Amino acid sequence: MSIYGENIKLNIFGQSHSAAIGMCLEGVPAGFELDFAELQSFMDRRAPGKSPLSTARKESDVPEFLSGLKENVTCGVPITAIIRNTDVKASDYEEYKTLPRPGHADYTAKIKYNGFQDYSGGGAFSGRMTAPLCLGGGICKLLLEREGIKINSRVLSIGGLTDMKKAEELILKVKAQGDSVGGVIECTAENIPAGLGGPLFDGMESRISSAAFAIPGVKGIEFGAGAKCAEMLGSENNDDFTITDGNIVTLTNNCGGVLGGITNSMPLVFRLYIKPTPSIAKKQRSVDLSSMEEKSISVHGRHDPCIVPRALPCAEAVAALAVYDALLGRKKEIL
Amino acid sequence: MSIYGENIKLNIFGQSHSAAIGMCLEGVPAGFELDFAELQSFMDRRAPGKSPLSTARKESDVPEFLSGLKENVTCGVPITAIIRNTDVKASDYEEYKTLPRPGHADYTAKIKYNGFQDYSGGGAFSGRMTAPLCLGGGICKLLLEREGIKINSRVLSIGGLTDMKKAEELILKVKAQGDSVGGVIECTAENIPAGLGGPLFDGMESRISSAAFAIPGVKGIEFGAGAKCAEMLGSENNDDFTITDGNIVTLTNNCGGVLGGITNSMPLVFRLYIKPTPSIAKKQRSVDLSSMEEKSISVHGRHDPCIVPRALPCAEAVAALAVYDALLGRKKEIL
Amino acid sequence: MSIYGENIKLNIFGQSHSAAIGMCLEGVPAGFELDFAELQSFMDRRAPGKSPLSTARKESDVPEFLSGLKENVTCGVPITAIIRNTDVKASDYEEYKTLPRPGHADYTAKIKYNGFQDYSGGGAFSGRMTAPLCLGGGICKLLLEREGIKINSRVLSIGGLTDMKKAEELILKVKAQGDSVGGVIECTAENIPAGLGGPLFDGMESRISSAAFAIPGVKGIEFGAGAKCAEMLGSENNDDFTITDGNIVTLTNNCGGVLGGITNSMPLVFRLYIKPTPSIAKKQRSVDLSSMEEKSISVHGRHDPCIVPRALPCAEAVAALAVYDALLGRKKEIL
Amino acid sequence: MSIYGENIKLNIFGQSHSAAIGMCLEGVPAGFELDFAELQSFMDRRAPGKSPLSTARKESDVPEFLSGLKENVTCGVPITAIIRNTDVKASDYEEYKTLPRPGHADYTAKIKYNGFQDYSGGGAFSGRMTAPLCLGGGICKLLLEREGIKINSRVLSIGGLTDMKKAEELILKVKAQGDSVGGVIECTAENIPAGLGGPLFDGMESRISSAAFAIPGVKGIEFGAGAKCAEMLGSENNDDFTITDGNIVTLTNNCGGVLGGITNSMPLVFRLYIKPTPSIAKKQRSVDLSSMEEKSISVHGRHDPCIVPRALPCAEAVAALAVYDALLGRKKEIL
Repeated sequence: MSIYGENIKLNIFGQSHSAAIGMCLEGVPAGFELDFAELQSFMDRRAPGKSPLSTARKESDVPEFLSGLKENVTCGVPITAIIRNTDVKASDYEEYKTLPRPGHADYTAKIKYNGFQDYSGGGAFSGRMTAPLCLGGGICKLLLEREGIKINSRVLSIGGLTDMKKAEELILKVKAQGDSVGGVIECTAENIPAGLGGPLFDGMESRISSAAFAIPGVKGIEFGAGAKCAEMLGSENNDDFTITDGNIVTLTNNCGGVLGGITNSMPLVFRLYIKPTPSIAKKQRSVDLSSMEEKSISVHGRHDPCIVPRALPCAEAVAALAVYDALLGRKKEIL
Repeated sequence: MSIYGENIKLNIFGQSHSAAIGMCLEGVPAGFELDFAELQSFMDRRAPGKSPLSTARKESDVPEFLSGLKENVTCGVPITAIIRNTDVKASDYEEYKTLPRPGHADYTAKIKYNGFQDYSGGGAFSGRMTAPLCLGGGICKLLLEREGIKINSRVLSIGGLTDMKKAEELILKVKAQGDSVGGVIECTAENIPAGLGGPLFDGMESRISSAAFAIPGVKGIEFGAGAKCAEMLGSENNDDFTITDGNIVTLTNNCGGVLGGITNSMPLVFRLYIKPTPSIAKKQRSVDLSSMEEKSISVHGRHDPCIVPRALPCAEAVAALAVYDALLGRKKEIL
Repeated sequence: MSIYGENIKLNIFGQSHSAAIGMCLEGVPAGFELDFAELQSFMDRRAPGKSPLSTARKESDVPEFLSGLKENVTCGVPITAIIRNTDVKASDYEEYKTLPRPGHADYTAKIKYNGFQDYSGGGAFSGRMTAPLCLGGGICKLLLEREGIKINSRVLSIGGLTDMKKAEELILKVKAQGDSVGGVIECTAENIPAGLGGPLFDGMESRISSAAFAIPGVKGIEFGAGAKCAEMLGSENNDDFTITDGNIVTLTNNCGGVLGGITNSMPLVFRLYIKPTPSIAKKQRSVDLSSMEEKSISVHGRHDPCIVPRALPCAEAVAALAVYDALLGRKKEIL
Repeated sequence: MSIYGENIKLNIFGQSHSAAIGMCLEGVPAGFELDFAELQSFMDRRAPGKSPLSTARKESDVPEFLSGLKENVTCGVPITAIIRNTDVKASDYEEYKTLPRPGHADYTAKIKYNGFQDYSGGGAFSGRMTAPLCLGGGICKLLLEREGIKINSRVLSIGGLTDMKKAEELILKVKAQGDSVGGVIECTAENIPAGLGGPLFDGMESRISSAAFAIPGVKGIEFGAGAKCAEMLGSENNDDFTITDGNIVTLTNNCGGVLGGITNSMPLVFRLYIKPTPSIAKKQRSVDLSSMEEKSISVHGRHDPCIVPRALPCAEAVAALAVYDALLGRKKEIL
């Protein structure tokens, strides 16, 4: 389903070329004054068209709020906001209806929707759908800031390069070649209280990962030391407890702030592994679905050679959704 | 919540030292004859006490079915089965109530449950809770086999070693040292129809990861080429389409059988990164929660030096749950 | 939550005086051509301002579809539609922020939302919220018609009068007196296949009633013989089976088409008991919430003296939602 | 689904003649000491075999708790309890597999479960399934009592008779005639805080009714003045506000304590209309499903001539579940 959360419910809707995309967020308590300027500056980090590193598609990504507010303050009922799709060129995509682009959802969507998929601009699979994700997550991020919880993210590497100047050169180079490149994002949530999450499917890793894989292009996630744990000894990986300023903390944070699915008050840390943008001008092989013949394909149009920088607010949105949802859940656990 | 699934609902309950652990699985259609012998042999792969590589705790893990069957055939209502906890030594754990074991949920559970956690044997955070997970997942695995879908898994590496003879030696060595070691599992689901899953939170990666992180010790998950995607070019990572035997397939499977969250009929492939068992005899640092003084801790008892081999059926259970749930969901999508 | 359904998910949002009201309906299979004209004529039955019997508030209730369609055909992703709130007079309601209207949610909303409720026009408690309910239910009604299932409703009585000419006179009389009156609606769904619903909370009565009480003013619901059952003998109430045209039917339909929560192929019949419109010009007693002093109140503005006729499509919408949701669920029950 | 609740999750499982019936209740905070004696005396009110007015089937209905407790105190994880089915005579029911009893779910279950239904003793449709409902609801009732909220119920009428001595005579008379009779229950929850519930599907009426119809035999529900509202004028039905002891109360309680789906602190009042027990010795008409021939049927066995008295704790259980679930939800609404 397109709905996330247990205590909040985030409903995302729209397609790349439908009249609008948007979200409906339920569960935010009444009385929260929404800082539109701060929310917009969060949204703007995701918006395209601002640098030679990203797509030229121009989208203002300014939401219109339809419900849930009374004079800019939440009134306790679902918050709905939409973003109109304006800079739309449907003709760009007519070809992909029968000639699926490698690495895209063209083929799988056609099967799932029995040929009735909205293929324009990738439909509901467009990266553009991360705008309402950021909108819902951005509201949660503001709610968390009110509680003193800070969520941040950074690019760790692009195409394997951790030096960001070299990474930028790489992006421009692959762009010139009609190619693209992937990368890694690290996201942290600091000042989280201990006790959020739970065992089994209730764990923070389950909650975060199920939201994180909603970001198109994410192919892996790890928490704390993550994949490296698998090469470590227990004596290396376990985080010893100690006391600092009267608080129980751990000396290391290999667990990424989560033990048994529950936050331990150390920074919650996760990393997302993002694949290269599938839309590339380089010639690839595909199959014409009407003639069932092999055919070469070269994807033109306005695409990011690397979506990783623009995915930073998405990672933060996902973290904010999961943490805020767990934080609301925590309130029910006191007898 | 302890409930997984959208079309099936798997409810897992119990604690390591409660009267029983168990599961309730709703949504399995009526008329399916349950092959108890096959299910038990699946369960037995998870059960401990069978090799020097695993814990000496003896648990038969033979479920008693309480509901949902009529003469061994599903009758359409929830299937409930329990496993009695018999080989229980509560006194083993009294100490950890106030002295949390590093790498365990002792501390976080205490916070979450306001001091009323069931600390014996790790309570609801025990690895033992994977028995009902395997029970529910095992039933789904049998249901999938009926559809021709095969789920398999294997250990890729232990402590970084891919040679399994050397890995076995490593496990015995760290065991002798009172230490433990982690590893990597790869799980595949073959012969899956295209069209399962969906965009956003409905994607197969979201569905699988949210179940996979319910397995204690999993700290990372990746699909297909996974983390390596982040170092690849689009032209390397995209899976070109071709036709084989009249079917549309891809030449490579970097996407792990999932595009846009939806299966494409190629093998679904994911890897789990599992941390070393946190219970180690080696001395570690902890904090006495009553006196709030630092104290050393050495965890004795019956523990696996490496849980990776026993986690194989858990990975398969998780895959089976997610795939079967998506398969049921697919039935609703035909007008 | 504002979300209904298990296999469809209907999300309703908006307030009487917010920018728009609307709904997001997920789970409708791809490939269904939406008959906008038929949907609009269903919506129009609910719309006000068309007769001296209803409120003078003019609302066109023409939805704008934002997502989920590709050239008027469902494409498998959430269908979102909004209706702008245009004929809005916020000042009408300023007084009720502190002086709650008897029979309305003014007081309870204030408590629930900690004083931040959107009080204008009744906010999220406005009868206007039944427009998106009818929109979502209306789509389901069209989907059911495609399967040959017909949903109808009629007014059984107004203020106890079953003669509809006398009832109309009563409405005009109470309107002139600044008063209002309630009534009873009967709704039937015919040509339903046997086998929809299930035991316990899965029953058709549970599914229908939980949706029906979302219609403001509904204070009772009954199925088949309903309340009369409580005065009957088993031998009178039980519906004997017989065979007609090779089909198993019942001679009577005291069960209202539902046995054990499951449809038996006889017409599904339920009745809704609707209270008189709480907005009346007649003087009533209230309490000023700021001064905590008793105060009289007389509610002016544009109100229906009797909402029962306009509630007919709401009853049908509720039936359609519940039946279509159950029908989709049925598809998963075949092994 | 067999799962109820949004903040608690009550999962009910079992069949009349399976090894056991039971329930799993999630969401109860840790630290609540369960008063087994009080819970048992609540359960005993539902248990059969105690009076000439009820069935002779002997069931002790003593639950065995399998999980969720640590030394009789909730530890925050799912509470599971089962009741063994012991006094079971499967042969009683073999006939009804092909000859459906009027008023029972025999026929509809056969359709729904494609012939694989557990027909013994009514399977999952047995009145016996109200034992785990009372177990889960009984725990919530105790939790509510801790908050000062009292839930009570009483029989209003049997077969239309409000004089309970005459009603008792009627039950014995219809029993002697091989017949049965229905009745009406009123349930109240007192001392409820204002602010529980919400608009639309979140309303208390929706929450209570969806649980109440899980009780076999309930065919109608109404709140406050209920069906009578439909005959009243607004000026009669609206509950005027006043101040008593500094609190805002209403002079009447026609709304049954719920306005706009939200509690207003007045007693929450609802009535259940219960049909006569369908199992009657009197000759009825049915159809043999294998020969498709009409056949007469006379249901023998151990049945209540009137289930209304034993349904009282069921009504209270339903009220407790709905109110406790809403009470937990309320905790999330404070910013």
